[in-house]
Amino acid sequence: MINKDTVSEWFRGLQDRICGSLEQLDGKATFKEDNWDYHDTGGGRSRVIENGAVIAKGGVNFSGVGGAMPPKLLQLLKVDAGSEEPLTFFATGVSIVLHSQSPQVPIIHMNVRYFETSNGIWWFGGGIDLTPHYVKPDLAKEFHEGLEAVCAAHDASYYPKFKEWADNYFYIPHREETRGVGGIFFDRLRATDGFTKVDRWAFVQSVGDAFADLYRHQVEQTRGLPYGQAELEWQKLRRGRYVEFNLVWDRGTKFGLETNGRTESILMSLPPQANWVYDYQAAADSEEQRTLDWLKKGIDWKDYQLIK
Amino acid sequence: MINKDTVSEWFRGLQDRICGSLEQLDGKATFKEDNWDYHDTGGGRSRVIENGAVIAKGGVNFSGVGGAMPPKLLQLLKVDAGSEEPLTFFATGVSIVLHSQSPQVPIIHMNVRYFETSNGIWWFGGGIDLTPHYVKPDLAKEFHEGLEAVCAAHDASYYPKFKEWADNYFYIPHREETRGVGGIFFDRLRATDGFTKVDRWAFVQSVGDAFADLYRHQVEQTRGLPYGQAELEWQKLRRGRYVEFNLVWDRGTKFGLETNGRTESILMSLPPQANWVYDYQAAADSEEQRTLDWLKKGIDWKDYQLIK
Repeated sequence: MINKDTVSEWFRGLQDRICGSLEQLDGKATFKEDNWDYHDTGGGRSRVIENGAVIAKGGVNFSGVGGAMPPKLLQLLKVDAGSEEPLTFFATGVSIVLHSQSPQVPIIHMNVRYFETSNGIWWFGGGIDLTPHYVKPDLAKEFHEGLEAVCAAHDASYYPKFKEWADNYFYIPHREETRGVGGIFFDRLRATDGFTKVDRWAFVQSVGDAFADLYRHQVEQTRGLPYGQAELEWQKLRRGRYVEFNLVWDRGTKFGLETNGRTESILMSLPPQANWVYDYQAAADSEEQRTLDWLKKGIDWKDYQLIK
Repeated sequence: MINKDTVSEWFRGLQDRICGSLEQLDGKATFKEDNWDYHDTGGGRSRVIENGAVIAKGGVNFSGVGGAMPPKLLQLLKVDAGSEEPLTFFATGVSIVLHSQSPQVPIIHMNVRYFETSNGIWWFGGGIDLTPHYVKPDLAKEFHEGLEAVCAAHDASYYPKFKEWADNYFYIPHREETRGVGGIFFDRLRATDGFTKVDRWAFVQSVGDAFADLYRHQVEQTRGLPYGQAELEWQKLRRGRYVEFNLVWDRGTKFGLETNGRTESILMSLPPQANWVYDYQAAADSEEQRTLDWLKKGIDWKDYQLIK
């Protein structure tokens, strides 16, 4: 039976497994846990890691909240309330953002979530995307190959569709840049197009389970790379872009702040430090400029080439 | 005759006078100028100052743009297009944000603006508000007394009304904090409530003219105060809140980014550096906690007392 109890229990376990894996990978810092209550029923278990060997600041948050459907939520989600009175909802998920110490190690984000209402509406959503401070096309390729394998085990249509969705979602219009090298993004996966609830849930579990290994590979390939002051400065500018995306454009963040969510858990996605310089221009032919050249929608990372 | 030409010319002159005054006050850094064109008609003159003795990063921007009314603008402004075809608009203003080197010196913001359409709609808007990293009630009092004097020379109703408007506008709902000690804010001032266009314009000019002296006084009273690493860390956290306000809640920033404005000019409001620490708690009885206690709506700064 796939319902709010079984799904949220599994998400709780996923949070545990991922935190264990990340602590092992980091080798220095450990997670601090905050438990909090939602004003109606349920609550969350926020876990934050700071000042690690690999991770500068990151969060792995579980939440499972429910109760009477707030009017604002009804409006934002455009849910059909039907005639059920009072309509109740339940939302549960795991959200992760990890900011790295080294500018050579990418920022990563993962989310898996489930939503249901008492009148029988339900869906799954989620995604994983990678934001390197310096784009390394070979590593972006391996990241996308990994995601494609996760998707392909469920349906051949998933990867192309969800990769394109991520390109469009993780995009910063006012900079005309993608946030990073993308990944997969999906929302409102229901029993449609021949998929059952069992199918959708199995896929979402696979995405959650894939996260730790995908990230570990990125870290192992980059943590030993050298960097100096110039790379650290660039990292802070790129973190500024991450802040801009999350605060201006990310629907999840907006949604959380507008529905009176727990601010510290929502904003765990922000970096330890971000810088802004007026009208920064990367030097021609620099590594920084090469990264900017890669921040485009529509790159097929499995057979990558620059889009001019 | 008060129209787009006379108003924008006056704003251009105001920018010149303020930049001159700020360079003199800073004594070290000077403004760099960027001229840019709007895709239709007009454009802007952005002036940015960085790494000064007093000012760490700041902008004093003039713009005067117009042309065919974009549908998005019509929708955001909720303007009655009437039957005029094609409807054209003109918007001009001066916007200022100054981030200080010293955590003892406040951040300040000022904006004066004018908008008109070819079918006879027009209004003025603007405001000045102060964001100390450490609230010093005596200086907040002097700031508000100065603003009240500017307002009172035009109408007794202005200060109380516009002070309350600023309290509500410069507010960070997800932190339950005001951005700073407020100031005045006003929008859509038209020929209403017995005021003429001449009256409104005279008031907006007074606000623009008052800025440099109000800021100079704050700087002179605070630039010599000592600070150390702890105060610098706190400053970066407060700058983080400034980023959160501007990117999540400020309608001017949203409006600019959504209507495809010049990104670097809009985001000149962001600080050189901002930090985030998960669930930061100020120590009881610290200067930091005292500042948080002052960040409330509804404080009468001219006769201040803490609102419990």
